[in-house]
Amino acid sequence: MAGSARARGLALRPHAKTHKCVEIARRQVALSNGGLTLATVAEAEVFAAAGLDDVFLAYPVVATGPRAERLRALAERVRLRVGVDSADGAALLAAAVPGLEVLVEVDSGHHRSGVVPDAAGEVAAAARSAGLHVAGVFTFPGHSYAPGERERAAADEAAALSVAADALRTVGIEPRVSSGGSTPTAALSTVDVLTELRPGVYAFQDAQQAELGSADLADIALTAVATVVSRGRDRAVLDAGSKVLGADRPAWTTGFGRLPDHPAARVVALSEHHATVTFPGPAPAVGEQVRVAPNHVCTAVNLADELVVVDGGVEVDRWRVAARGANT
Amino acid sequence: MAGSARARGLALRPHAKTHKCVEIARRQVALSNGGLTLATVAEAEVFAAAGLDDVFLAYPVVATGPRAERLRALAERVRLRVGVDSADGAALLAAAVPGLEVLVEVDSGHHRSGVVPDAAGEVAAAARSAGLHVAGVFTFPGHSYAPGERERAAADEAAALSVAADALRTVGIEPRVSSGGSTPTAALSTVDVLTELRPGVYAFQDAQQAELGSADLADIALTAVATVVSRGRDRAVLDAGSKVLGADRPAWTTGFGRLPDHPAARVVALSEHHATVTFPGPAPAVGEQVRVAPNHVCTAVNLADELVVVDGGVEVDRWRVAARGANT
Repeated sequence: MAGSARARGLALRPHAKTHKCVEIARRQVALSNGGLTLATVAEAEVFAAAGLDDVFLAYPVVATGPRAERLRALAERVRLRVGVDSADGAALLAAAVPGLEVLVEVDSGHHRSGVVPDAAGEVAAAARSAGLHVAGVFTFPGHSYAPGERERAAADEAAALSVAADALRTVGIEPRVSSGGSTPTAALSTVDVLTELRPGVYAFQDAQQAELGSADLADIALTAVATVVSRGRDRAVLDAGSKVLGADRPAWTTGFGRLPDHPAARVVALSEHHATVTFPGPAPAVGEQVRVAPNHVCTAVNLADELVVVDGGVEVDRWRVAARGANT
Repeated sequence: MAGSARARGLALRPHAKTHKCVEIARRQVALSNGGLTLATVAEAEVFAAAGLDDVFLAYPVVATGPRAERLRALAERVRLRVGVDSADGAALLAAAVPGLEVLVEVDSGHHRSGVVPDAAGEVAAAARSAGLHVAGVFTFPGHSYAPGERERAAADEAAALSVAADALRTVGIEPRVSSGGSTPTAALSTVDVLTELRPGVYAFQDAQQAELGSADLADIALTAVATVVSRGRDRAVLDAGSKVLGADRPAWTTGFGRLPDHPAARVVALSEHHATVTFPGPAPAVGEQVRVAPNHVCTAVNLADELVVVDGGVEVDRWRVAARGANT
């Protein structure tokens, strides 16, 4: 990802919510020579403590209550930029951290946070009036998470960021940063509109990415090692449930995860401590181990205290999920 | 729940996977004068360290690798009973802990682990031959988690446990324990078949139970306090996403959780750090706080390090989620 971004003249700011792991973040910034994207003040506090001091919180951070004081303390320690998508949010941010650098979030089709691109100028003007420094615009083309939608989502991203940049210019702000990207769209991003990519999942890949076609099953670096605890002829029950894999299950996926070593197997049901898996042939026996790739690696990692690092089947290290649970 | 079980002559063995919290477990066993149900060896290790020493692992525990040694150590510290649903599993258990007390798991309609009730005698005989002590049978009527299915699931539970008990008698084993129950079925359990109930969720209740009719929204004791971070006219985006609430979302639910103070609001989308909520009238403003009840409290609690105990709106204590992450 770092090589691909560099070759296209794009900054890479990996979203570290995927791994929440200092050792991986250090490797990423060494390769990209840039900063990190994070989702929460709590995550930024963890990474700042480890010396990772260039952070974009790609989120409409609302600075109320204790979070205002934490944000102020964070801004004194690291080079900080945050998202904003409302005049109310801008006023709260400016009260907490005068002069804070912000990007205006626009909705490029995912319909979550962010204003319509045309309204970016209005938010930017409000942020400037409140005393914030508006550095540009960002979006998350999350509607890329559906089969066959990557190209359209990447086009929507470019269109939304382009309109938003023009909206900033109409209020007299020249955007320096135009930030987008997701793992499915990263390779398709429009280089004459974007300046920065923020993919996260690529660090490990996961079953969703394999089913979307943005990764091969064999490329998935993070798996849970599960044991067969119960068995029928064509199915087995594994001891990795939603408290290990996470329960993410979009309608377009084939199940609740994939088994990279059994590509035709399907995880047809998941409860807290059980994964029910069908096999085209005989299922593995009680006591056997299998590897399971979660559907969504970001939520699976957040359930683990540490990552076991394996090279050629041999454990070589353990890395702490330092920002596990740091979600506020 | 303790009063209801006592009045019907049933033992109550609350499933503490719901709360993973020593302070709550102590209150439960004080009320029920009995033991706990748990799902994993790791959970039992945590509760044993706190002196909670009567444990049923309602799970087909497979004693391979390091888990065999941990199970042996656990059996020396606590009064331990575990589930078994195969001859292979029984052989592994017996090798790890000779003489261990087991219940045979039967499938009463949830189709997860457990053998068909007729086969319980065969598993029991294998377990006895391997050197285990077979104390009875258990089931989880998990198909009670669907609207209008509680009565049928409770009837299936009784039928399955009854057939399973007879199957044990045909191999010369008189079952002392016939264990079932879930929060939706607990009040409907057949007292002349069951000896023990193992509900878990009732300790807090959650959005699923409210939508199933086994709790009122106002009865839900555990909520996440979320802040509005983005807003449209009829919708708001909250900062409690799947990394706080969990992503459980059965097709029959109205969304990804409920807002007890806004019963008509719907959580229509959930991502890691965003909950998109529609409101019938104007949505709350950016910066306002709302309470969100998770769909499935068991997975939500497993995402938190501590519970804030509130009485009349005032924080009175903080309890550690001591077995958070203890899922293996």
